[in-house]
Amino acid sequence: MNETVHILGLPGSLRKGSYNRALLQAATEMLPPHTTMEIFDLDGIPVFNQDLEREAPPRVRELKAKVRTADAILFGVAEHNYGVSAALKNAIDWASRPYGDNVWAGKPVAMVSASIGMLGGARAQYQLRQTFVFLDMRPLSLPEVFVTFAPQKFDSQGRFTDPEGRKFLSALLGALVQWARSLKGAGSSRSG
Amino acid sequence: MNETVHILGLPGSLRKGSYNRALLQAATEMLPPHTTMEIFDLDGIPVFNQDLEREAPPRVRELKAKVRTADAILFGVAEHNYGVSAALKNAIDWASRPYGDNVWAGKPVAMVSASIGMLGGARAQYQLRQTFVFLDMRPLSLPEVFVTFAPQKFDSQGRFTDPEGRKFLSALLGALVQWARSLKGAGSSRSG
Amino acid sequence: MNETVHILGLPGSLRKGSYNRALLQAATEMLPPHTTMEIFDLDGIPVFNQDLEREAPPRVRELKAKVRTADAILFGVAEHNYGVSAALKNAIDWASRPYGDNVWAGKPVAMVSASIGMLGGARAQYQLRQTFVFLDMRPLSLPEVFVTFAPQKFDSQGRFTDPEGRKFLSALLGALVQWARSLKGAGSSRSG
Amino acid sequence: MNETVHILGLPGSLRKGSYNRALLQAATEMLPPHTTMEIFDLDGIPVFNQDLEREAPPRVRELKAKVRTADAILFGVAEHNYGVSAALKNAIDWASRPYGDNVWAGKPVAMVSASIGMLGGARAQYQLRQTFVFLDMRPLSLPEVFVTFAPQKFDSQGRFTDPEGRKFLSALLGALVQWARSLKGAGSSRSG
Repeated sequence: MNETVHILGLPGSLRKGSYNRALLQAATEMLPPHTTMEIFDLDGIPVFNQDLEREAPPRVRELKAKVRTADAILFGVAEHNYGVSAALKNAIDWASRPYGDNVWAGKPVAMVSASIGMLGGARAQYQLRQTFVFLDMRPLSLPEVFVTFAPQKFDSQGRFTDPEGRKFLSALLGALVQWARSLKGAGSSRSG
Repeated sequence: MNETVHILGLPGSLRKGSYNRALLQAATEMLPPHTTMEIFDLDGIPVFNQDLEREAPPRVRELKAKVRTADAILFGVAEHNYGVSAALKNAIDWASRPYGDNVWAGKPVAMVSASIGMLGGARAQYQLRQTFVFLDMRPLSLPEVFVTFAPQKFDSQGRFTDPEGRKFLSALLGALVQWARSLKGAGSSRSG
Repeated sequence: MNETVHILGLPGSLRKGSYNRALLQAATEMLPPHTTMEIFDLDGIPVFNQDLEREAPPRVRELKAKVRTADAILFGVAEHNYGVSAALKNAIDWASRPYGDNVWAGKPVAMVSASIGMLGGARAQYQLRQTFVFLDMRPLSLPEVFVTFAPQKFDSQGRFTDPEGRKFLSALLGALVQWARSLKGAGSSRSG
Repeated sequence: MNETVHILGLPGSLRKGSYNRALLQAATEMLPPHTTMEIFDLDGIPVFNQDLEREAPPRVRELKAKVRTADAILFGVAEHNYGVSAALKNAIDWASRPYGDNVWAGKPVAMVSASIGMLGGARAQYQLRQTFVFLDMRPLSLPEVFVTFAPQKFDSQGRFTDPEGRKFLSALLGALVQWARSLKGAGSSRSG
């Protein structure tokens, strides 16, 4: 019951001052008991080309190893042009291949996102949920975290300071950890 | 482990010869062990009006009672104009209200769909998955069942005769029952 | 160029105090020059049943007549459970049938929505855009109008008082009228 | 009226034997009168990083120049994990930046896709339509081209040989060219 849950945080943007990365950083500081979290940056990964999928670059192999040992995934979903950022989709696609080696299958997963606009990355989160179906992941339903008008919610050091938002983030972390614990043993529906 | 799982089947179309209803009918004949299934038709429900949500018509109260006691939900998703049929969305909305009495929360759920076209209702299924997020349901990821070019897959008595399709339907039922068993006790993330 | 453009406004909710209806009402008071607008309420329409599509109820026949003579459509999109309200989807489906008598085809269309939550109906708007594809409508892309936290944006008489929101609504109306004018003669891609 | 329409074809996959590229190749051989088409491959573009958007690599600058002079865009949409391929989303994102230099705005656009599965890339096409909203593009509604079970529809030289599919592809090209002609002068709604 109180076994440690290890969360892998994956920021969807390569931008140094990324709000999405900052959200994940904030998460590491408000973890529930018996929980650890590590952030893995997605830089250094070339654009996916299926012809090369059996020669995955070192950074992809590292990512896959991290995903394999994680108990839960937390994506910091960057939204670009009303869709998932290429950097995030690219990493997800690489780590799902080659066929038969999809490391995402069966993983409990949640998302947080921040954007400068009024929808806080929601459009990208809903698109990513569709990808979770094929990847056979186990998405948390609620609560959802969408940080709108991001420049007002982070301080000059990039710390997530919005009190209301921090409450939602904390609730999401609690729900994700509980979800991961409740799914232990449920496995992948593909293997079912 | 082998406790009986009771599935509630909800056909999304009011049409008498509905392929989606016929798919659910086929499901009742290929249930896994220790599983029962009942089909509940969605006729007799007026269009939802929030002003009247506290005086739900009898058919809605019946539906809510059925959902409450079901261990899993199986929607026969009718697609109209690339979206969820009004009949299905309407029943779902009624049964989610009033606020605080959402009977869908925490329920394991899967979908099947059939259409005369080439995508087999897929567009409506993906839209409904978005609704499951807010309803806090527990959707199965895989396998998915989309019956394309429906007139070729059912006989003159409306029996689902497509061998390949029947295999997928049977696999989906097995996965749904396993999913429902594995979630027993996991509860709703809202209560978490 | 300056021919009058007639907009048909369709509120997606049957609720008397509907924010979406109020938004359309506000629109009628800030129309661009050479533009008229009429609101048509969607009550009195039973749930669609394809078996009855050739005996459309009077209210549906009225709706279809209104759509036929409109130069542009403006939906007040109510979002229920992260999807399109049943009332709105139902009216759209009725007016698209029977096959060969889809009155929506080729119509310029825009959407506005208001919700009590933080996304302002955006999820329902994006789902409806998918329906516009099959209906062969001509959706405006930008600007979009999502009124969030609606209770703060309307006064006790239901008037839309948010200055920022009113600016967006006015811009949307201008863009819709211009879009309708530019499409005159472009016709339906189905007939192409 | 009969001014030449120049289509830019953009294949969404970097794979040498890509079915999506082959579809675009087939399109070049069945163009309507007074139409030209060029295919531009999306290799050689690094993953988008907003910190570097003002130093776009040469291949991105080439792409933007091609888009600027095109009368219509035809995407060969590769679907990976139920979403848009990273290669395609990445190119689109690069060419939309920096802010104020979105070369996609106002462009007539259509999509074709092929996949080895039963939905033919439909899920990715619908996600991309959402991106077209923000990019302020002018998507064709119908017809849609989804090539399912692709290995059966192309010969050993990668030629698209499916008679039914070729008819739809030809119809789509005709509709896209007509759409592009009808929009001449309509411009971008952003500038409206």
